Amino acid sequence: MNAPQKGNVLRSTESEMPLARRARDARSSAIREILKVTLRPEVISFAGGLPAPESFPVETLRAAFDKVLREVGPGSLQYSTTEGHPQLREWVAARETSRGIPTTVDEVLIVSGSQQGLDLIAKAFIDEGAPILVESPSYLGALQAFGLFAPAFRAIPTDGDGLLPQAIDATLAADARFAYVMPNFQNPTGRTLTNQRRAELAAAARKHDFWLVEDDPYGELWYRDQPPPSLRAFAPERTFRLGSFSKILAPGLRIGFIVAPRALIEVLIRIKQATDLHTATLTQRAAFEVLASPLMAQHLPAIRARYAAQCAVMLEALAQHFPREAVWTRPSGGMFIWIELAAAQGIDTTELLARAIERRIAFVPGEPFFATAPQRNCLRLSFVTVPPERIRAGVAVLGELLGARG
Amino acid sequence: MNAPQKGNVLRSTESEMPLARRARDARSSAIREILKVTLRPEVISFAGGLPAPESFPVETLRAAFDKVLREVGPGSLQYSTTEGHPQLREWVAARETSRGIPTTVDEVLIVSGSQQGLDLIAKAFIDEGAPILVESPSYLGALQAFGLFAPAFRAIPTDGDGLLPQAIDATLAADARFAYVMPNFQNPTGRTLTNQRRAELAAAARKHDFWLVEDDPYGELWYRDQPPPSLRAFAPERTFRLGSFSKILAPGLRIGFIVAPRALIEVLIRIKQATDLHTATLTQRAAFEVLASPLMAQHLPAIRARYAAQCAVMLEALAQHFPREAVWTRPSGGMFIWIELAAAQGIDTTELLARAIERRIAFVPGEPFFATAPQRNCLRLSFVTVPPERIRAGVAVLGELLGARG
Repeated sequence: MNAPQKGNVLRSTESEMPLARRARDARSSAIREILKVTLRPEVISFAGGLPAPESFPVETLRAAFDKVLREVGPGSLQYSTTEGHPQLREWVAARETSRGIPTTVDEVLIVSGSQQGLDLIAKAFIDEGAPILVESPSYLGALQAFGLFAPAFRAIPTDGDGLLPQAIDATLAADARFAYVMPNFQNPTGRTLTNQRRAELAAAARKHDFWLVEDDPYGELWYRDQPPPSLRAFAPERTFRLGSFSKILAPGLRIGFIVAPRALIEVLIRIKQATDLHTATLTQRAAFEVLASPLMAQHLPAIRARYAAQCAVMLEALAQHFPREAVWTRPSGGMFIWIELAAAQGIDTTELLARAIERRIAFVPGEPFFATAPQRNCLRLSFVTVPPERIRAGVAVLGELLGARG
Repeated sequence: MNAPQKGNVLRSTESEMPLARRARDARSSAIREILKVTLRPEVISFAGGLPAPESFPVETLRAAFDKVLREVGPGSLQYSTTEGHPQLREWVAARETSRGIPTTVDEVLIVSGSQQGLDLIAKAFIDEGAPILVESPSYLGALQAFGLFAPAFRAIPTDGDGLLPQAIDATLAADARFAYVMPNFQNPTGRTLTNQRRAELAAAARKHDFWLVEDDPYGELWYRDQPPPSLRAFAPERTFRLGSFSKILAPGLRIGFIVAPRALIEVLIRIKQATDLHTATLTQRAAFEVLASPLMAQHLPAIRARYAAQCAVMLEALAQHFPREAVWTRPSGGMFIWIELAAAQGIDTTELLARAIERRIAFVPGEPFFATAPQRNCLRLSFVTVPPERIRAGVAVLGELLGARG
């Protein structure tokens, strides 16, 4: 036998163990560093994607965990089936159905947060080099999850109303496995895709034969009006819809769900089983107790009102302190405002962050949100965890660093 | 541009969506079907890998969840860092250190069950076609987790004392990324690797330059004597040690850990972040409360005594009811007995299972535990969730089906 030489294996500089190709580029990401910076209380952080902890239904969850452990006992701590707790799957199916998209329980898979949903979809559908379409800019965590499977990223251009469906022509769509889209209050831009564009996107998906991965963690966080219907309303037969309980219950529970045609849910169940067997039994049961309780009817309006008010404070502060040449989004829901500085000003927002951190202000520079051709003049601000007076103070400091009207 | 034709993409028969190559073979596994069969109360199931639910510290966990939600509140429900809850990491590091293997907190990563540990290691280190070494037979869930990344499996032969280190020569080890080993009370065989063989395995790993992935979910479940030291005692610089809280607390919590050299933990943290951000915050905190409580000192001896007694009942029943030509393991810990029927008898255990299910008895046939060259005359029996009289009754029926002494 002609055994390959060890010397042929590329060695990582950080260890003596040969890393898989996919792992060599997995740099420590902005998200992770952000989570660390936000732990320092003296920093005014507009960087987090963290929901406001005051909004978590702590007491209701405490009662729910207590009830499940008392009433179900050991069964709530045992291994369970990969597809998820039946009542929680039913709750998801009923909610989809109540929104006009008939959905059965076998079209639902419970996952360990919607980030895991992205991992499972990547595992199931991305061969190395396979093209996938992403908005430009797009959610950083999705680019990371997909990136581990080395697809060929192709960018769908966007404007103030989200992605441009007419840009998806035969060349862009050629052989694409799916388009990854966050239609409601997108991370990082806060933009919402119009009803018209949703219909056009679905038509493009049918015409060019690609699938839609709709990620909707923020859909419940509308301020005045509900966003347009899910992409499943336009193309149920070719849409994976990812949902999260992180923003309506609490993110630390790590539960979310995928809704998709049954045959594809079956594929994802097999993949999930090999990945982590199943999502925590007790947590699924406790989450169901809270979702099924009357609390949710009061809880969501309170979060919406809070986020709408904080968003308004930040928009007002931006108008007061930021350069006239900068443009920013005016979100109708969600957690983020996206700012584009005038290119002529020549400011690289990654460098700006270093200066901002010295003044104890954090935000996320735009660069990592671009899968291809990064823009360096953008930044993402989150307003949800910062009290109004600190929003005003922090935005004023950023405006000063940008050399704006003082 | 010469766009590839859609017709070139292989389509799955089960959907119109092109599956990644890795997903086409991910058949619904024995484990998953087993979890379903064991839900039927009329079945005497020797099939499960489920720990006995009577052993779960339900009341202590209930108090722990209650305490964390009361005392930590929203912070226990927020996003947290990928590497895990600091106190839980410290607990793991201190336990390793107390066993004579000095370990620091940055050598520990908390994962969503040790199954996820296997997924993360596979992601980090398996390129398509890369050789990895596995025991023959080996844990089915590991074969599935690794299988998604399409390695070239190479089988290490075994005997009654576990794998044979002297079989690992330059040819078998050529270019191997790692050897996956379950040294204590192995799943499926119940065998334990001797101290001498652990030393020889570590020497082989150094000589041929491969890593060791030590999976140890059952190490605490010894009946009389502790098993020999961890592989980290022999080769700390090239061992990933996977631990689980599933067997000492409860599996439905889905928490486990990986201990490895710091540079490799850093790689795994980056991969885990893209995979599921982090393991549930609340659950990690509650688990720490229980592990740090005095309960564990009484809890573990009770589980050990229970499992030892049930194992003895099954061994006695096998001696009474099974054919004289069959051989089986006599485990010194853990949850499983492995039986090899006489090849001359010509019984395929997958066919035997179909007949057993008709008689309402379940077990796992040996075939799926072999990565290469499956043996069809083996079966795995678990005794931990079945009361003694049902163990005797079930084994008697199996003996009858095997045409043994009646």
